[in-house]
Amino acid sequence: MPKSKARLSAADIHGAWAIIPTPAKDNASDWRATDTVDLDETARTVDKLIRSGVNGILSLGTFGEGATLTWAEKKAFMATVVETVAGRVPFFGGTTSLNTRESIEQTRAAADIGVDGTMLGVPMWCKADVPTAVQFYRDVAEACPDTAICVYANPEAFKFDFPRPFWAQVSEIPQVVTAKYVGIDRLLADLRLTKGRIRLLPTDNNYYAAARMAPDQCTGFWTGGAVCGPELAIKLRDEVDKAKRSNDWTVAREVAESVAAALAPLFPRGDFAEFSKYNVGLEKARMNAAGWMKAGPCRPPYHLVPPDYLKGAEEAGRLWAQHAARYAG
Amino acid sequence: MPKSKARLSAADIHGAWAIIPTPAKDNASDWRATDTVDLDETARTVDKLIRSGVNGILSLGTFGEGATLTWAEKKAFMATVVETVAGRVPFFGGTTSLNTRESIEQTRAAADIGVDGTMLGVPMWCKADVPTAVQFYRDVAEACPDTAICVYANPEAFKFDFPRPFWAQVSEIPQVVTAKYVGIDRLLADLRLTKGRIRLLPTDNNYYAAARMAPDQCTGFWTGGAVCGPELAIKLRDEVDKAKRSNDWTVAREVAESVAAALAPLFPRGDFAEFSKYNVGLEKARMNAAGWMKAGPCRPPYHLVPPDYLKGAEEAGRLWAQHAARYAG
Amino acid sequence: MPKSKARLSAADIHGAWAIIPTPAKDNASDWRATDTVDLDETARTVDKLIRSGVNGILSLGTFGEGATLTWAEKKAFMATVVETVAGRVPFFGGTTSLNTRESIEQTRAAADIGVDGTMLGVPMWCKADVPTAVQFYRDVAEACPDTAICVYANPEAFKFDFPRPFWAQVSEIPQVVTAKYVGIDRLLADLRLTKGRIRLLPTDNNYYAAARMAPDQCTGFWTGGAVCGPELAIKLRDEVDKAKRSNDWTVAREVAESVAAALAPLFPRGDFAEFSKYNVGLEKARMNAAGWMKAGPCRPPYHLVPPDYLKGAEEAGRLWAQHAARYAG
Amino acid sequence: MPKSKARLSAADIHGAWAIIPTPAKDNASDWRATDTVDLDETARTVDKLIRSGVNGILSLGTFGEGATLTWAEKKAFMATVVETVAGRVPFFGGTTSLNTRESIEQTRAAADIGVDGTMLGVPMWCKADVPTAVQFYRDVAEACPDTAICVYANPEAFKFDFPRPFWAQVSEIPQVVTAKYVGIDRLLADLRLTKGRIRLLPTDNNYYAAARMAPDQCTGFWTGGAVCGPELAIKLRDEVDKAKRSNDWTVAREVAESVAAALAPLFPRGDFAEFSKYNVGLEKARMNAAGWMKAGPCRPPYHLVPPDYLKGAEEAGRLWAQHAARYAG
Repeated sequence: MPKSKARLSAADIHGAWAIIPTPAKDNASDWRATDTVDLDETARTVDKLIRSGVNGILSLGTFGEGATLTWAEKKAFMATVVETVAGRVPFFGGTTSLNTRESIEQTRAAADIGVDGTMLGVPMWCKADVPTAVQFYRDVAEACPDTAICVYANPEAFKFDFPRPFWAQVSEIPQVVTAKYVGIDRLLADLRLTKGRIRLLPTDNNYYAAARMAPDQCTGFWTGGAVCGPELAIKLRDEVDKAKRSNDWTVAREVAESVAAALAPLFPRGDFAEFSKYNVGLEKARMNAAGWMKAGPCRPPYHLVPPDYLKGAEEAGRLWAQHAARYAG
Repeated sequence: MPKSKARLSAADIHGAWAIIPTPAKDNASDWRATDTVDLDETARTVDKLIRSGVNGILSLGTFGEGATLTWAEKKAFMATVVETVAGRVPFFGGTTSLNTRESIEQTRAAADIGVDGTMLGVPMWCKADVPTAVQFYRDVAEACPDTAICVYANPEAFKFDFPRPFWAQVSEIPQVVTAKYVGIDRLLADLRLTKGRIRLLPTDNNYYAAARMAPDQCTGFWTGGAVCGPELAIKLRDEVDKAKRSNDWTVAREVAESVAAALAPLFPRGDFAEFSKYNVGLEKARMNAAGWMKAGPCRPPYHLVPPDYLKGAEEAGRLWAQHAARYAG
Repeated sequence: MPKSKARLSAADIHGAWAIIPTPAKDNASDWRATDTVDLDETARTVDKLIRSGVNGILSLGTFGEGATLTWAEKKAFMATVVETVAGRVPFFGGTTSLNTRESIEQTRAAADIGVDGTMLGVPMWCKADVPTAVQFYRDVAEACPDTAICVYANPEAFKFDFPRPFWAQVSEIPQVVTAKYVGIDRLLADLRLTKGRIRLLPTDNNYYAAARMAPDQCTGFWTGGAVCGPELAIKLRDEVDKAKRSNDWTVAREVAESVAAALAPLFPRGDFAEFSKYNVGLEKARMNAAGWMKAGPCRPPYHLVPPDYLKGAEEAGRLWAQHAARYAG
Repeated sequence: MPKSKARLSAADIHGAWAIIPTPAKDNASDWRATDTVDLDETARTVDKLIRSGVNGILSLGTFGEGATLTWAEKKAFMATVVETVAGRVPFFGGTTSLNTRESIEQTRAAADIGVDGTMLGVPMWCKADVPTAVQFYRDVAEACPDTAICVYANPEAFKFDFPRPFWAQVSEIPQVVTAKYVGIDRLLADLRLTKGRIRLLPTDNNYYAAARMAPDQCTGFWTGGAVCGPELAIKLRDEVDKAKRSNDWTVAREVAESVAAALAPLFPRGDFAEFSKYNVGLEKARMNAAGWMKAGPCRPPYHLVPPDYLKGAEEAGRLWAQHAARYAG
């Protein structure tokens, strides 16, 4: 099912972008399990998200278990999403791997399946420097010229701190149109360096701040919480939009405070590095507890999480669901 | 070519174990290249190493480009080595990947090819804790009961610091018989905890020290330098053996000093973390400069190395070759 | 000269707060030098800053050489500043030391000299945990009840990452009224936790962003650049104030871009950790190059800086001076 | 009481060197306390150590509370030790501070009191590079030519990783005669670089290994355990000496295993970085539990330690005391 539509550009990336898990069957934590993707739940989740109004879908990141799915499972998952999306919103698969050639092969296959883009992290066995990281994206872009790339900027996963020269250089690659961005400390600097060539997507928890500091440039965000109840993410998007027009940010900030309150218990002891060790298990526990979808168990080896950490994650899921219900009402 | 011989035990691991690169054809740094393994050079190198007297062969680690080879290339490489080794010494392939199921699938295929064991690192996308790391090895061992496992203890690559409880627990898995071990600060403690169930292999540069501090337990080492001239590694092994019997360590220490002198320029500014970023490129430059074998260029994305760093690596290669020539004479 | 005026509160902290160096005589890098503070330049600088309109003065931090001045020099410096300030703006001395009792003794002496407060970091020999850090501030506050405290939140210097529970707890100490705050990633969360009890002062380079994301709470900032030309800092303060009233942030953002452009070359390779190693020398080189005041050389052992790093710092000084001159015109 | 004897040289440093705490009166954790040193216990401890046969005494390091004593207390402590030692063994005071001039002033005063040397760490506010660290030691040595210097090589405390070029350069300073050294991973390399100009003292827990790998150069060690019962440290020293002569290391290794077993519970979760945060409190709890001396409570701010960590430290103290009693019998 090859695509004939034009490659996405930065201008196409705005609004609330849901990052989704890869729904797992009940036995997915067992290494003997094969074919672990719950494709029915995948289709249901994607369809409900789009009908709720999300603007785009990212997938196969950390809690999307890009690391622990088999290649056959990844392809089946992407095919189901492509079919369900049916062109209604942009959809990014994920093709992070241990090396350039593997990421190229997967990206080409994903393009054949019909994704609009790939959320792509830099190979992580050795710590990359800037020339290595930029060349990696250049090579994938050269090999897959029609596929949009979302730089997957996760310093914990990829041992790379995404310094300023990286953004200046990587944003010159035409295929690189957006980034799953982390933090806001360096956001203005990185907006300056990337000159509008790519859309930096802050997380839902930073969107209010990002949109205030750079209202014209920060027009979208990624959210792992959408699958705990999309109404909270949609509300955040809409109230920020209203505030940009009215210059009254009161309600937008209230919604941002709801997001922050719902996220706080997700992070063990408020520690992001500790969260990152159990990212997959904590996020899936959050989603399962929220009850909006069934994310299911984790694939090995990331299925073991300290029980007290799980409690916080489940609380985070319930809180998000409560806030979402309030805004849905 | 399935194996019928018994699984290796810790007692089978001793002496000088060469870790080998995966020889690359001239175009291997280009992402378009396929079938990049120089199988002739692979066979030549392995045969020469065995005829030089090495006691075992490890492969497909960091500079073995386990991260950047395609699966087809890995299989072709392992098949060539198995055929060349022809049972003369134990041979460990490498099946590190991003998750448990992939490592199991690769390990089973490697066993079918005929490897004696696998040098296996823990999945590295998320930082593992001890339960996750141990369970990973348990799962692979359960799935591949006839294949020996060498724990690949590289903290820089795998974001795991291999703490004491890990060694105590992982050494209880029967398939885990050895480890490519790093440092000697905690060696006595880890020997105590592992109780002889596995053979901890220090690096060539630490073997003299390790053999002195625990002569009965430290009876082997791994060496990346063997492919720069195996005679230096063989000499180190033999002089340490002699010293253990005679209690005169004078010559053994002299050889150890030669090893240290030959390794010093390999590490940029003496900094191991900096070395680790360019491990593949530096080691292959060292090997190519030594002239004993042709390691060839690096597969992407690890083919870019600061030129001044390369100079040190090349100097290290020449120094090793000189020392090896002296001991060969 | 004891003070009789009331202790400062968070409400007293707003606007542009200059952090000043401790001007050094020409021989100050020699360990034999005593009495190294250029008190005349100190008085001149402080008076000029106040007449330029700064709202408060912080001192004796990292580039203020709180670490490398003798106690006699610190006292002489604080006395000169107190005398020059003459109550026109609040002035914070600095009494960071290696332990609680020493910081208490210095803070009491500083209060006798007439400071309004102390910029105070947590002892740094051992890495503090939250209970230790909070108790440290509690003890100093109990011992010095009339002296305001500015938490000196420098993670690189004090090996402490200032996590959320710290802010929640430390802000309950009445004497703690403000903080020299770092970054904006966690600003909204920390504002939430501190509930207006203390004024978090972001750096000049983050003030625009901070003021947009929390206009009612972010009403001031600290600036090391004021002594390179206060007009740029004053302009930033005033344009942000105007923007808050008019809801037109165009000019404020332009000024913020000037600040960012002037700061960029100060950080070697854009790396804050690397900057922190040479903070003192780089900041003083910046100030000396700007030409607005004479910061002089660095006290030992922080007088050795890589020459190519100094070039960037000097460029940063000249850039700041140019922007300041433009806004002064 | 100025000294007229010649400055110590590396050859004077050998055997078991006790590092001692600064005994504290019962109220020492209160910031109001002054004059907190229990000088009687100081004299008793030092005299008993010397009569037990220790070869030298180090002091005023981390658990010696060099960071948290007042200068008056430090002087009183050093004077008591000098008087008690009465020339029987070498004694190093401690003069680590935040800057060069302060360390020089303290070192001169310590020399006047009669110390043989100073255990001296590098200033720690900013992270030092090699030129800064070496120049610091050069400056102190130039200012205090008759005082021996023991490099206090604690990477956790001083943010400095003591790389190879540091040792090569610092060992060229005549006053630098020894180092409280950490680890053994780089010991042979550092022995090579320092060429016998300084005596590197490994910790008691590494002495067996160090003495085996470099028997002629590793002739002494430092021990924090001596004040938990000196007989274990003395036994270690003597059995290693015997083994060097007889080439039978059986008993020496048994003693080394006792040391290791007695130390294991001191480190929370086996984690040295975690230990370092509570070093003072854990070591003093160990000593108090051993019962051989009374170390007393900790000065602020390092008096707060997680209770479960304290249990391990107390167990470590009891274990050491048991082993010491066995060897005393």
